[in-house]
Amino acid sequence: MDFKRTDYCGNIFSKKIGEKVTVCGWVQKQRDLGKLIFVDLRDRTGVVQLAFYEKNPKVFEQAFRLRAEFVVAASGFVCERSSKNPNIPTGDIEIEVEQLRVYSKAQTPPFEIVENSNAGEELRLKFRYLDLRRSDLSKNILIRHKMAKLARDYFNDNGFIEIETPFLIKSTPEGARDYLVPSRAFRGKFFALPQSPQLYKQLAMIAGFDRYMQIVKCFRDEDLRADRQPEFTQIDLEMSFVNSKDIMSMVEGFIVKLYKNIFNKDIAKPFFQMNYDDCMKKFGSDKPDLRFGMEIIHLTKLLKNTEFRVFSDIIKNKGLVCAINAKGACDKFSRKDIDKLSGWIVAHGVRAISFTKSDKNKNSSSSYEKFLSTEEVKNIRETSSFEPGDILFLVAHKNELTCLEAIGALRVKVAQIIDIKKSEISLLWVTNFPLFEYDKNQSTLIAKHHPFVAPKDEDLKFLETNPEKVRAEAFDLILNGNEIGGGSIRICDFNVQKRVLGCLGFSDEETKERFGFLLDAMQFGAPPHGGLALGFDRLIMILLGCENIREVIAFPKISTSSELMTSSPSVVCDDQLNELGIKLDKLENTN
Amino acid sequence: MDFKRTDYCGNIFSKKIGEKVTVCGWVQKQRDLGKLIFVDLRDRTGVVQLAFYEKNPKVFEQAFRLRAEFVVAASGFVCERSSKNPNIPTGDIEIEVEQLRVYSKAQTPPFEIVENSNAGEELRLKFRYLDLRRSDLSKNILIRHKMAKLARDYFNDNGFIEIETPFLIKSTPEGARDYLVPSRAFRGKFFALPQSPQLYKQLAMIAGFDRYMQIVKCFRDEDLRADRQPEFTQIDLEMSFVNSKDIMSMVEGFIVKLYKNIFNKDIAKPFFQMNYDDCMKKFGSDKPDLRFGMEIIHLTKLLKNTEFRVFSDIIKNKGLVCAINAKGACDKFSRKDIDKLSGWIVAHGVRAISFTKSDKNKNSSSSYEKFLSTEEVKNIRETSSFEPGDILFLVAHKNELTCLEAIGALRVKVAQIIDIKKSEISLLWVTNFPLFEYDKNQSTLIAKHHPFVAPKDEDLKFLETNPEKVRAEAFDLILNGNEIGGGSIRICDFNVQKRVLGCLGFSDEETKERFGFLLDAMQFGAPPHGGLALGFDRLIMILLGCENIREVIAFPKISTSSELMTSSPSVVCDDQLNELGIKLDKLENTN
Repeated sequence: MDFKRTDYCGNIFSKKIGEKVTVCGWVQKQRDLGKLIFVDLRDRTGVVQLAFYEKNPKVFEQAFRLRAEFVVAASGFVCERSSKNPNIPTGDIEIEVEQLRVYSKAQTPPFEIVENSNAGEELRLKFRYLDLRRSDLSKNILIRHKMAKLARDYFNDNGFIEIETPFLIKSTPEGARDYLVPSRAFRGKFFALPQSPQLYKQLAMIAGFDRYMQIVKCFRDEDLRADRQPEFTQIDLEMSFVNSKDIMSMVEGFIVKLYKNIFNKDIAKPFFQMNYDDCMKKFGSDKPDLRFGMEIIHLTKLLKNTEFRVFSDIIKNKGLVCAINAKGACDKFSRKDIDKLSGWIVAHGVRAISFTKSDKNKNSSSSYEKFLSTEEVKNIRETSSFEPGDILFLVAHKNELTCLEAIGALRVKVAQIIDIKKSEISLLWVTNFPLFEYDKNQSTLIAKHHPFVAPKDEDLKFLETNPEKVRAEAFDLILNGNEIGGGSIRICDFNVQKRVLGCLGFSDEETKERFGFLLDAMQFGAPPHGGLALGFDRLIMILLGCENIREVIAFPKISTSSELMTSSPSVVCDDQLNELGIKLDKLENTN
Repeated sequence: MDFKRTDYCGNIFSKKIGEKVTVCGWVQKQRDLGKLIFVDLRDRTGVVQLAFYEKNPKVFEQAFRLRAEFVVAASGFVCERSSKNPNIPTGDIEIEVEQLRVYSKAQTPPFEIVENSNAGEELRLKFRYLDLRRSDLSKNILIRHKMAKLARDYFNDNGFIEIETPFLIKSTPEGARDYLVPSRAFRGKFFALPQSPQLYKQLAMIAGFDRYMQIVKCFRDEDLRADRQPEFTQIDLEMSFVNSKDIMSMVEGFIVKLYKNIFNKDIAKPFFQMNYDDCMKKFGSDKPDLRFGMEIIHLTKLLKNTEFRVFSDIIKNKGLVCAINAKGACDKFSRKDIDKLSGWIVAHGVRAISFTKSDKNKNSSSSYEKFLSTEEVKNIRETSSFEPGDILFLVAHKNELTCLEAIGALRVKVAQIIDIKKSEISLLWVTNFPLFEYDKNQSTLIAKHHPFVAPKDEDLKFLETNPEKVRAEAFDLILNGNEIGGGSIRICDFNVQKRVLGCLGFSDEETKERFGFLLDAMQFGAPPHGGLALGFDRLIMILLGCENIREVIAFPKISTSSELMTSSPSVVCDDQLNELGIKLDKLENTN
């Protein structure tokens, strides 16, 4: 490096006119105007225009040969531009180059390094290091850094200490699937990569560290969705001698600070809270998007004496009939659109959608009104505030939860279709979760959150007799309909922990084998404690309005869990496997 | 939590006298004086004395039942102590307790929670959460947090951004052994855990991020030494458009800040530099401890015409004869001690140590002087500044490097034996390393640092003809004789990278298969770049004067790579292995 950079490209403004500067970066483009050559030079801060004049033949000659993505350093005086560019921050100036050094030439990249690239994502992932040069992607990574720094500052200021928890841990299969790591020193044994540092942060509280914080990678070997990655990042917290309110308040302070520092937006706290039962009843979701209304209308009582068999059978079976009213959206749903929605909802466990619509001329049609009494029709319309121009969607199912979840999903879907007007930000705590939920596939109780969440004291008595009635000291943070954090008070009593694990089907022996160290720890003085984990990738994605989680991760994996740039995973040599004492199954499928 | 903590135990001083406070923590000890009970309450900040008087029978009764490690909250007024304890910061006051809440009882712990515990380390590791309550251990973790925060602040202030690099990466076996992670989606293929984020941070530079920083876990499946862990933490840096000096200066600023903030010590910069050849010649080590002198004395030239066969054979074979003079330490080495040292040095590849000693009465003895000429003896004594009271150790070997490394090791050993006076801190950059070293076991060249270190421009011409002559743009940071950081300028030229990989024995095909993505990247505009990684665990260990790296890691592993608290690694169920398409070798040894 014989050129010493004085400034970043994006930071040179008119107050620097007359100064000599040295910049380094990549050629964004070169324009040859005959006696004058312009080069846009780019670094992570932005772009600045370099000007090369024929009167300085050495650099003019060099500039002539520059191509996109060449890496150069340039020295020269900052001058006022004759034709200013108001579209970029440095558009008032240019650098008249006196010395140029080409550090690295570049082949023509496989796609152009510009904002809003229309190159396919697969190609861009293969050349991720080029894609990351595009400012719409690099700015996400720069903001990610800023958010991580804000988190560390905020929690440090509040007395949290970073404690690094191990990555090679014991496999305790519950919840998602573990990634395993074969041990060479103990052939036939395995480590697992952590799905979260849950037990270690609880042990840190039992050790007396009082407030713990870590921004940490976690691993889940699951089939991926658009917003999941096999490795993902959590802002992980734990506090001792606190209740739920203390934890929520601490997290609110952080979210408020994020919005203030990143977007200069003031968010009010405390955030709105709603208990789980209300969420389900009103929005059919435990992570409702409250940026818009369209609350669920409950019609079950109203129809309790109906003679229409479709509804009456369901109601007799303790099922529900629910509706949503898409105000003024009648025109947006043709009969064909409604049929399509009806097909769509099957995946949510109900057979079809019923509807009533009425255009502004009061021409109305309905799939069910003809089967109901005039009184019932009137009551439904009144209860739903149904007016000309509206369309009412009804969902009914004998299983209460299925019905609510289906109408909840429909609410979100309809809002999307009609492009409903949404407020900008909806932050919400959902509280009073059930401790367990029933897993139909395995016919067992599973933990709604995880097995270490404390039951509410007053519900302890139901643990063995009516476990589904037991509520948890748990609270999820919802941002615009997405769960961005899950928190709870943890069990700190040995006996309660044993009873909860018992409800989850662990025998005494299994409990001892898998969680013996935690149960031991609880017998040597465990403080009341609790905490929360924020999904950092998802938080950034939602804050920045990205559509895919890959847009906020520097080197992401695709949905098969592979990484396209380095082509991993890959085959390894036999020596490596022999040392580990493992063999491949004959039928291995290398895809 | 019905008690709201107002203060940490260790922060209540006499200016709080008369105030009502609430503290939470663990009972350190309880002393029953009949009408008065004292309880020392501990949290992460320290200890405070609680006083319980008979006149308040409810809390007095509660206090009577308290035992070590019970978890409680206590409220009461801060009072001046009648008998002050100058040994603890809160020794002037006590809290006269009005309300007490016992959150958690505790069994008698398997060892006492006190400083300088004499319990065995194995027991303490099994109950790590109890061991971490001891202040001599917890203070290390608290300082570790402080150091991590300082690092993040310092590098952020200097324009570095944190970029998270992936943990599930491609296995590129070179250097140490990879930990492997079987892929379920691609049966028969594997991820590896990173030995360092080396290639990703270089790609981040090629992507234009300019300055990268991460405090990151790395993994090496090696047989462990006292200061190694299978997972360890690096402060990992990379910068673009810089030379070695820029990187060293940036790191010096950080180390200076650490010493200032942690120990309030001023360290001068720039740090001392020494090139590799001089280090080897003067101290027989590429990480010399310069807190003391005892430089190597070179006797080869002096003895070039000696008739003593032991030396002359070696010198004829281009070997060396070297000495160190342990000034005034003659009395510390009996003949038996010297024999022991001679036995010890065999592991360093030389057969024995020769010596000359002379006590203060000039009674002298020597193992070799009788074989030399009077002139030679005189010259050796003069060159070595040998005086009465000194002892001179000689080492000779036909291989130059073996001789230097042996005498270098002897220098450290002797300094330890005689408890030589050392200055407090020695910080040193070692520069001008060879790019390669010859691996006798495999009869190949291996990279002295790693395969991506740039050769010095002027030595490029030797790459194919005399690769061992090629020096690297590499620099190690040495603290008190320990390597705490390794840095270098990286190769950013496609052809140079290919040539270096060629020297290391990679065929074109292997190069493409393993490093193709990096070589591709270098062809699309790679900036000059370089960086450094600090071994964070080791840095903390040395700064805090700990003897074992486990003392600065919250949840460490032992030398077999297992973790005693959770008993990991462990066996996993067949279903897990079946899903991954792997089988255990029949002869697996589960130790």
